[in-house]
Amino acid sequence: MPTYKAPLREYRFLLQNVLEIERYSNLPGFSDAPVDLINQVLEEGAKFCEGVLAPLNKVGDEHGCKRSEDGSVTTPPGFKEAYRQFTEAGWSSLSSDPAYGGQGMPHIVALAWNEMVASSNMAFGMYPGLSHGAYEAIHQHGTDAQKQAYLPKLVSGEWTGTMNLTEPHCGTDLGMLRTKAIPQADGSYRISGQKIFISAGEHDLAKNIIHLVLARIEGAPQGTKGISLFIVPKFLVGADGALGKRNGVVCGKIEEKMGIHGNATCVLNYDDAVGYLIGQENKGLMAMFTMMNVARLGVGLQGLSQSEVAYQNGVAYAKDRLQGRSITGAKNANGPADPIIVHPDIRRMLMDAKAFNEGARAFAFWTALYGDLLHASPDEKLREKANDYMGLMTPVIKSYLTDKGYANATNCQQVYGGHGYIEEWGMSQFVRDARITQIYEGANGIQALDLVGRKLGANGGRAIFAFFNEIDDFIAANEEEEDLVPFTEGLKNAKAWLQDGTMWLMQNGMTNFDNAGAASHDYLNLFGITALAYMWALQAKAALAAKKNGGAADPYYDNKLVTGRYFLARSLPDASAHLHKLKSGAGPVMALAAEAF
Amino acid sequence: MPTYKAPLREYRFLLQNVLEIERYSNLPGFSDAPVDLINQVLEEGAKFCEGVLAPLNKVGDEHGCKRSEDGSVTTPPGFKEAYRQFTEAGWSSLSSDPAYGGQGMPHIVALAWNEMVASSNMAFGMYPGLSHGAYEAIHQHGTDAQKQAYLPKLVSGEWTGTMNLTEPHCGTDLGMLRTKAIPQADGSYRISGQKIFISAGEHDLAKNIIHLVLARIEGAPQGTKGISLFIVPKFLVGADGALGKRNGVVCGKIEEKMGIHGNATCVLNYDDAVGYLIGQENKGLMAMFTMMNVARLGVGLQGLSQSEVAYQNGVAYAKDRLQGRSITGAKNANGPADPIIVHPDIRRMLMDAKAFNEGARAFAFWTALYGDLLHASPDEKLREKANDYMGLMTPVIKSYLTDKGYANATNCQQVYGGHGYIEEWGMSQFVRDARITQIYEGANGIQALDLVGRKLGANGGRAIFAFFNEIDDFIAANEEEEDLVPFTEGLKNAKAWLQDGTMWLMQNGMTNFDNAGAASHDYLNLFGITALAYMWALQAKAALAAKKNGGAADPYYDNKLVTGRYFLARSLPDASAHLHKLKSGAGPVMALAAEAF
Repeated sequence: MPTYKAPLREYRFLLQNVLEIERYSNLPGFSDAPVDLINQVLEEGAKFCEGVLAPLNKVGDEHGCKRSEDGSVTTPPGFKEAYRQFTEAGWSSLSSDPAYGGQGMPHIVALAWNEMVASSNMAFGMYPGLSHGAYEAIHQHGTDAQKQAYLPKLVSGEWTGTMNLTEPHCGTDLGMLRTKAIPQADGSYRISGQKIFISAGEHDLAKNIIHLVLARIEGAPQGTKGISLFIVPKFLVGADGALGKRNGVVCGKIEEKMGIHGNATCVLNYDDAVGYLIGQENKGLMAMFTMMNVARLGVGLQGLSQSEVAYQNGVAYAKDRLQGRSITGAKNANGPADPIIVHPDIRRMLMDAKAFNEGARAFAFWTALYGDLLHASPDEKLREKANDYMGLMTPVIKSYLTDKGYANATNCQQVYGGHGYIEEWGMSQFVRDARITQIYEGANGIQALDLVGRKLGANGGRAIFAFFNEIDDFIAANEEEEDLVPFTEGLKNAKAWLQDGTMWLMQNGMTNFDNAGAASHDYLNLFGITALAYMWALQAKAALAAKKNGGAADPYYDNKLVTGRYFLARSLPDASAHLHKLKSGAGPVMALAAEAF
Repeated sequence: MPTYKAPLREYRFLLQNVLEIERYSNLPGFSDAPVDLINQVLEEGAKFCEGVLAPLNKVGDEHGCKRSEDGSVTTPPGFKEAYRQFTEAGWSSLSSDPAYGGQGMPHIVALAWNEMVASSNMAFGMYPGLSHGAYEAIHQHGTDAQKQAYLPKLVSGEWTGTMNLTEPHCGTDLGMLRTKAIPQADGSYRISGQKIFISAGEHDLAKNIIHLVLARIEGAPQGTKGISLFIVPKFLVGADGALGKRNGVVCGKIEEKMGIHGNATCVLNYDDAVGYLIGQENKGLMAMFTMMNVARLGVGLQGLSQSEVAYQNGVAYAKDRLQGRSITGAKNANGPADPIIVHPDIRRMLMDAKAFNEGARAFAFWTALYGDLLHASPDEKLREKANDYMGLMTPVIKSYLTDKGYANATNCQQVYGGHGYIEEWGMSQFVRDARITQIYEGANGIQALDLVGRKLGANGGRAIFAFFNEIDDFIAANEEEEDLVPFTEGLKNAKAWLQDGTMWLMQNGMTNFDNAGAASHDYLNLFGITALAYMWALQAKAALAAKKNGGAADPYYDNKLVTGRYFLARSLPDASAHLHKLKSGAGPVMALAAEAF
């Protein structure tokens, strides 16, 4: 049975030493959340995740969700009670607006909490996760009446939410969607059509489900310009807030999936369902997109979360399993064999995961802090930078963290040998659950296209040049620091490669768009490695400072430096390979005629 | 529902144009199998795989194997009938010794056949696959009486076989095994103990199952020097060949696994079971190892097989699924969207798989040909080289082909977007089935250690230096050929990197064994890429020659060259990254104290 221990020390190090969030204690959100309180919240959260959610992870995988003939859905044993405890303890409202009952904590705190939830039980975490998406949509685009009607219950967790985009014939290409909305005399609409892959689409955890649905108003333009967003509650809500009659939306099927069995992935059939327009007519896609940065960051974090929990269990097994002897002589001479953590290739797999986890977590937190500053900072210049960075980093975090999360979960499963393949040991579930993160919320190929096609060139490349300048400034300010030299040198190389790739793209991507498409995956990965190299440099600097400031006796900081140096030696070389691949251009990728595949 | 089409054209090209097996028509095995006959056999085999085995693949995944309380096991619906047809058509005896009813075809033909079987239905293919392992063990190490008693029925498929190595506390480290063998007055033994992860360990396909079991004779030395190999039939066999009483071996459990559900992975409990020593006392491990090259080649092929079938289905979906428009302008203007094969990043994933599949298949076939020559050639020098190459290449094929097989299956699943995650579409199964190939028959980390620790230095590095010389000779003989230049140049680079890595290992691996262990994974991958670069050069040369010899109008040869150039542009750069990583040595890998993980 796999276990989970929240990386609280990592959170403290990141928030206090690396990001120094006390700098922002004058800003809204931060002012009510001093570091001590944040630590306390995360400690409580850790107990809940470790004690309540993690033990249900395997239960959820084994039992899955069951649909009855009437379309109702039963979640796995224990989920309902855990959800009750979850909402009663206020976990659903952590970073929500106090105006609607939320606790108004910085998003960066919610990020740490979300990682813990996803590591403990990703399928469970998706229920409140989707609610938060619906909350964001209504909070940003709803009328006051809509906010009053739906937000308090979404914040408290009494109701949950969903996002309805995909239809059988349209996933990425939402311009093709057919779900229809017919205007009614009272200003409402009647929604009809079929949506698929709706996570948390139907279940028994909450009294009501608020579906956010993309549909086309009768007579609207073709393509993406004719799509509107609607609120479609499972139970209609009266003016007094009481639940009224059942709306015309039914779960037609639960999909059998590779993983996340504990979450009900539904086919939802809308048949003349009452819906309410949210935001402007035909601007539904834009309304949806404004939420995407947050949602995609969250999915990137899910990738990391599976890497983290798989790593923890890989380590436990590697310390426990006795098999063979160290090639440099027995390390457990009195035992029948050495623990397999003595073997370099076992360590390679674990160190790959560890160095990624700590670098990727820093990257996600560093970016999320900009998300907070975007809302809270009075400094217009900083808000602009924050907005630029959020746009630029989000596809990288979504794609790079989920691809590596899957790879690391696979490697940590490999540490178990044959036992890794047996479901009983739980490692297979981490791999199978991690797999979805590469696909949903915009498949990773789409993220890469978003990066090279939209984010890179926006405002004349303002975001990427700011990032380059920031790295240059860091190197200039720190390259004299002897202990930092491997980090500033590594970062310098990575940044030079990324700059080279960026220039190549700017020169060749416009003359032939296929060059941009063909380069996108490798460019994104080159970007991800460079960002992590920067994060490792920041962490190394913070660790060295902490050592000087009374932390010399704490092995934590030296271990941090050792892990960072592993990243430089063993992960950085991939960046150069990505550069070579992307510069080979569209030619090799496009040369084969489609019929020759 | 996924489909499969056997790559018959690829087999023809490899056997006739690349390997020119007609050169060997004077050798045993080959003399009875002219190319025309081989083609005919493979065509018949293809029909069987496509028509009978492939349609049962998903059935096997969904139903799995069921164990009854008496320990009997039922295979998935259709498996029994398919197995009957399989044996009746003689597919179980293809490359077996004619002295025992086999058809005596070259192993390279069986290799093609095995790939088709594994692509169609890997879980099914493991039943006859394990039988062949048992056949090999008895054929090589059994007494005449044992051969007469067991081989004809294993060859005909009337009985199946298994290999019993692993116990709960010992997998890789077989020195720890505890299963006991107590000598009896009649020369037989009584075997007691528990074996786990026994593929095809119990089932309803055949009348008898011949278990090959590693056990320790009472009083034998500790460790690997006290292990013997035993034949333990499920039903005892009388002197007349008739089945006698049920032996003391029972399936205690079927494991719930990530994949290959159609194969019964059993816990086998031996309780005073009658067993017969095969080979010499205490030399069981050596007897087992002599079969390993063949078995590991077979597993490498399974990795390729899942990459191939996932690729085929990825292509079919990419041509069929309409979503978005080409970034260079609509390619299907009359349709609602373009097929997704127009998108460069979709092509990247498919081309990665295609370039790997064709290169890896060449590598497996090229190596398997040496396996045939090892047995059939009268040339002692050639037999020595064949033996060297088989030893050197086998761990690379096992590990590189399975790691990439899994990665490609994952990428082809990614082509399906959300549908890839739904079991209904079948792509998840390819990934889950492929995953075991990295683990069983020696986990891939063990393969890498075998390569750097045993194979590389054997006979003063004779095998690897022969390989380098062969590549140098090829380059020298072909570098003037203009159309081959990209291939000879690419190969030259790869070989230089591999040589550099080899020298580094020879210098640093002996002074600190951890350097060898830490480098092993990257060295093996560097080797794999270099081997494929050589295979692509061989294929390119053969394709150019075929074009000149009347094939100019056949697009097959140009497509071959295009695919090879993709490999050079997009896969070769990884070799350099592996070199950099391995040369960073053991330091970064071993620096962290075990308790700091």
